[in-house]
Amino acid sequence: MNIQTPIDKTIPTGERPGSRKVYQPGVLFPDIRVPFREVAVHPSAGEPPVTIYDPSGPYTDPTAGIDIEKGLARPRDAWVVARGDVEQVAPRAVKPEDNGGAAGKHLAPQFQTDRRPFRAKGGATVTQLEYARRGIVTPEMEFVAIRENLRRQACDAFIRDGEDFGAEIPDFVTPEFVRDEIARGRAIIPANINHGELEPMAIGRNFLVKINANIGNSAVLSQVSDEVDKMVWAIRWGADTIMDLSTGRNIHNIREWVLRNCPTPLGTVPIYQALEKVDGVAEDLTWEVFRDTLIEQAEQGVDYFTIHAGVRLPYIPLTAKRVTGIVSRGGSIMAKWCLAHHRENFLYDHFEDICEIMRAYDVSFSLGDGLRPGSIADANDAAQFAELETLGELTKVAWKHGVQVMIEGPGHVPMHKIKANMDKQLKACHEAPFYTLGPLTTDVAPGYDHITSAIGAAMIGWFGTAMLCYVTPKEHLGLPDREDVKQGVIAYKIAAHAADLAKGHPGARAWDDALSRARFEFRWEDQFNLGLDPETAREYHDETMPKEAHKTAHFCSMCGPKFCSMKISQEIRDEAGRQNHVAEAGMAEMAEKFREGGGEIYVDAKG
Amino acid sequence: MNIQTPIDKTIPTGERPGSRKVYQPGVLFPDIRVPFREVAVHPSAGEPPVTIYDPSGPYTDPTAGIDIEKGLARPRDAWVVARGDVEQVAPRAVKPEDNGGAAGKHLAPQFQTDRRPFRAKGGATVTQLEYARRGIVTPEMEFVAIRENLRRQACDAFIRDGEDFGAEIPDFVTPEFVRDEIARGRAIIPANINHGELEPMAIGRNFLVKINANIGNSAVLSQVSDEVDKMVWAIRWGADTIMDLSTGRNIHNIREWVLRNCPTPLGTVPIYQALEKVDGVAEDLTWEVFRDTLIEQAEQGVDYFTIHAGVRLPYIPLTAKRVTGIVSRGGSIMAKWCLAHHRENFLYDHFEDICEIMRAYDVSFSLGDGLRPGSIADANDAAQFAELETLGELTKVAWKHGVQVMIEGPGHVPMHKIKANMDKQLKACHEAPFYTLGPLTTDVAPGYDHITSAIGAAMIGWFGTAMLCYVTPKEHLGLPDREDVKQGVIAYKIAAHAADLAKGHPGARAWDDALSRARFEFRWEDQFNLGLDPETAREYHDETMPKEAHKTAHFCSMCGPKFCSMKISQEIRDEAGRQNHVAEAGMAEMAEKFREGGGEIYVDAKG
Repeated sequence: MNIQTPIDKTIPTGERPGSRKVYQPGVLFPDIRVPFREVAVHPSAGEPPVTIYDPSGPYTDPTAGIDIEKGLARPRDAWVVARGDVEQVAPRAVKPEDNGGAAGKHLAPQFQTDRRPFRAKGGATVTQLEYARRGIVTPEMEFVAIRENLRRQACDAFIRDGEDFGAEIPDFVTPEFVRDEIARGRAIIPANINHGELEPMAIGRNFLVKINANIGNSAVLSQVSDEVDKMVWAIRWGADTIMDLSTGRNIHNIREWVLRNCPTPLGTVPIYQALEKVDGVAEDLTWEVFRDTLIEQAEQGVDYFTIHAGVRLPYIPLTAKRVTGIVSRGGSIMAKWCLAHHRENFLYDHFEDICEIMRAYDVSFSLGDGLRPGSIADANDAAQFAELETLGELTKVAWKHGVQVMIEGPGHVPMHKIKANMDKQLKACHEAPFYTLGPLTTDVAPGYDHITSAIGAAMIGWFGTAMLCYVTPKEHLGLPDREDVKQGVIAYKIAAHAADLAKGHPGARAWDDALSRARFEFRWEDQFNLGLDPETAREYHDETMPKEAHKTAHFCSMCGPKFCSMKISQEIRDEAGRQNHVAEAGMAEMAEKFREGGGEIYVDAKG
Repeated sequence: MNIQTPIDKTIPTGERPGSRKVYQPGVLFPDIRVPFREVAVHPSAGEPPVTIYDPSGPYTDPTAGIDIEKGLARPRDAWVVARGDVEQVAPRAVKPEDNGGAAGKHLAPQFQTDRRPFRAKGGATVTQLEYARRGIVTPEMEFVAIRENLRRQACDAFIRDGEDFGAEIPDFVTPEFVRDEIARGRAIIPANINHGELEPMAIGRNFLVKINANIGNSAVLSQVSDEVDKMVWAIRWGADTIMDLSTGRNIHNIREWVLRNCPTPLGTVPIYQALEKVDGVAEDLTWEVFRDTLIEQAEQGVDYFTIHAGVRLPYIPLTAKRVTGIVSRGGSIMAKWCLAHHRENFLYDHFEDICEIMRAYDVSFSLGDGLRPGSIADANDAAQFAELETLGELTKVAWKHGVQVMIEGPGHVPMHKIKANMDKQLKACHEAPFYTLGPLTTDVAPGYDHITSAIGAAMIGWFGTAMLCYVTPKEHLGLPDREDVKQGVIAYKIAAHAADLAKGHPGARAWDDALSRARFEFRWEDQFNLGLDPETAREYHDETMPKEAHKTAHFCSMCGPKFCSMKISQEIRDEAGRQNHVAEAGMAEMAEKFREGGGEIYVDAKG
């Protein structure tokens, strides 16, 4: 094999600065190894290390041998086989149209494997939802339970301070809680039986808020190596799932490379590839081409499919007066098909057939919001909410077939219309997890839509959205590159964590408090290492105070030594410690007196 | 005069790309010229140009002769003199300690002027508040009224769609409305009678949300030219006011250079300079030194003073158990003074004396929140809210003396605790305008606090904050440079505009809609030019599609031509236009039928 790609060279591996990769084993399933990122602080602090959720996979494990051409190890295969309900089948043969007819030097190399795909045996339903309903706790569920607790113990103290708008986040996540959430349809574990490389994670309102990063080539740009690199890069910074939105040639082969090296769930929009197979002519799409594409991708191991089955023929006229029409790619493709044939969306008509396929591989639905608003002007309109009602109806159909479901949401929404989206979604879709793009809270900042949308994402995450689909600075302008991916992921990690804090997630506050203590105590290295992006924090600090001695300085260049409030604040504490009438205990006592006295008079004990 | 600074060379002048500087004259005061930035769109759109609020001053006027050494023109002097209540006085002599004892080559050059400062004649109160109460509409008030309307006419149609939480934003701003808001204390026009270069602006909940950018050197870094350049740079990107937070040497001279070239209100924290005058020893601060500093700065033309008079002695013990103590520089200085002397804050004790000085120059109060929370853990605590109550009490004292007031607010606050800040401030401070720093919604992202705080800023702006103090990416890490200033300003322009949209400000939506129409119609140049940062948007687009022909392409590199939803959406419209049974009018009609029919059945008129 002679693959002349720069893949191996550019994949970023190794632990992140100041972090250590650690694993926690299972109890019910002792062979599972749940990964975390541990950040130790300076011994002077006398504090335990901070445990941070870690979706970065084996790439940040210095003991893992990474070989992109072999792919990651597949520990999940054993779990799948152990359930005794799958069989290996002869793989669907790769057809030239799977790669958009790319040939010769234009054809991306095939990932070399002789693995035969799993499929449910004899019409069985092999989904996490089905197991959960039958009362079975799977290894995937225990993995998720351990992961969500961030190495907290059930008996540990924690701070619970938030407004959760009716969510039911437990103090401590048990495997049984996970099972119950899955069984109710309030959470999903996207986990195709053919994705053996997967480290399972949950998407649900009662778990930590997750983020998705999109990668994918387009007809204009990009190649295999770029996409694998972007995937590894995105999870390194904290993306919880990846969507491969490739639309050019070589879709099949690129996807295989990405999947075989991907430890997070991977989602796709199968209609993109189906459209490529009919040369980009939406009218030529057929159920048969689409069905074949679903099987192709399910066999590869795609964990969730965006399916735009809610773009119903009667809703299309509702978009005619919009400022920005239909902005979902999948939505516009289906709308075009519907109008051209003047027939109902074949994804809607064949929805039960789609369920039949997906339940045989445990592919989860991400019911696409093809009619989401693409501008502030179009937010919360009739087209959008008509589709949402249909997605609720389809959720019940999918659940009937034992298929896991999440629901996609907007888009562009001004702040005052965001909560209505969440409230309607919860009601219309029976509490199935919500997965929103942003929303962008204004249209006026092309080049900064990671920020316009992080505002909306933080808010809707607080209100109850389970996963936030990132937006990069290149949104509306071009294909994101590596730096854009990083900027998008970090903006969304901020939004997701701000949401966890505001919901009062019991595992959220410890991280902020550890960083703030480090800040107050001038433990600069700890402050960098505990941050979302240690490299950038350090670089910014060092721009103006580069010397090693400055790492212990009790000030920074923003205020200089005389004006550092934290320094003065510590001097005040020290001073207070020296003066016994204002010693810390005494200070608190006097403060208490002050409050009791109505806050008006301060009685000095010494006079 | 031989000033060897690079000032003249680096000041960015000229119109912004795609923008034209325009002025609207007054009606009551025909000589006032209210500036706007006008963005014309492509003639094919058949739309009027978009008018954008423009705080950038003469620097973006190609007809203005900019000479930093002479300073800007002073049109306001005539307005001030015309009121007949001021006199020119011999200026307070500059003392060596005003510049921190800098001498020789370390002394920044003095700005050359022989102007004698204005001061109120014979104990008069020369504030906009005093005039407003007397029923007088000043040129400043008419200037603001015109400015807030963005060239809308009272009869123009507009979209009013928002949740304003009890604000009283009028459909159209009249000079009388401005006068009434000022008289009630619900808005301020920071406008020192010695700031003749000022283009007046209003800060109030019933006006557009404003943003402030901080500049200033520290003992560690920076010099004159950097600060003037940063000021011009910040207003070029949209900062509405500037705070000069300099703390090193040369404070007096740098401030003079900045003021004489600054068309926006300039705020300071006088205690910083006072502390320099006592060699950085907080305990050595005295009322006399502070008083002298107020007069020094008032004569120079500073428009608002941050005064930390609410850091009362009895509140200091309330901070003892905080994770991050006192994080306001001014707050910590005063706390240290209080503890050292075990006496009440002299700013509180001398508050009426301070009012006496400020009303003689129309310097506005920005009542400092010296006890604001510096971490998520400390948000909304007893110390913070005790101080807020005191600021409310002081607001009434200032109003009694005819002095304009705004109130500073936090800081670090998780999303679920933001609204309580606004609600308490409105109540405790009698609707005086709120001016908040962020708030940051999580502590875990050093290097990205422009984003963590833009989330909180957008929300609190929506809830009613009148001005948002920006945070740059360097927050907590170092002194912001030029690029940081730009990033901070843009993040905050996004937050402020998102807030205006959500409040339903009648002038807000037109901008978003114009940009979205440009986007939908592939008017790339219009999309760039209407954006907050045309240069960056263009650069991002051109990275992947650099050719001039691509500027008219009906797709971008993100999706490529086949998958562009906007392109397909337009094809759908065209298609709909061709099919008479689904012609646009008919589509709407059918949609109506569909809705009437309960949304279940779609009746094709042709069968």
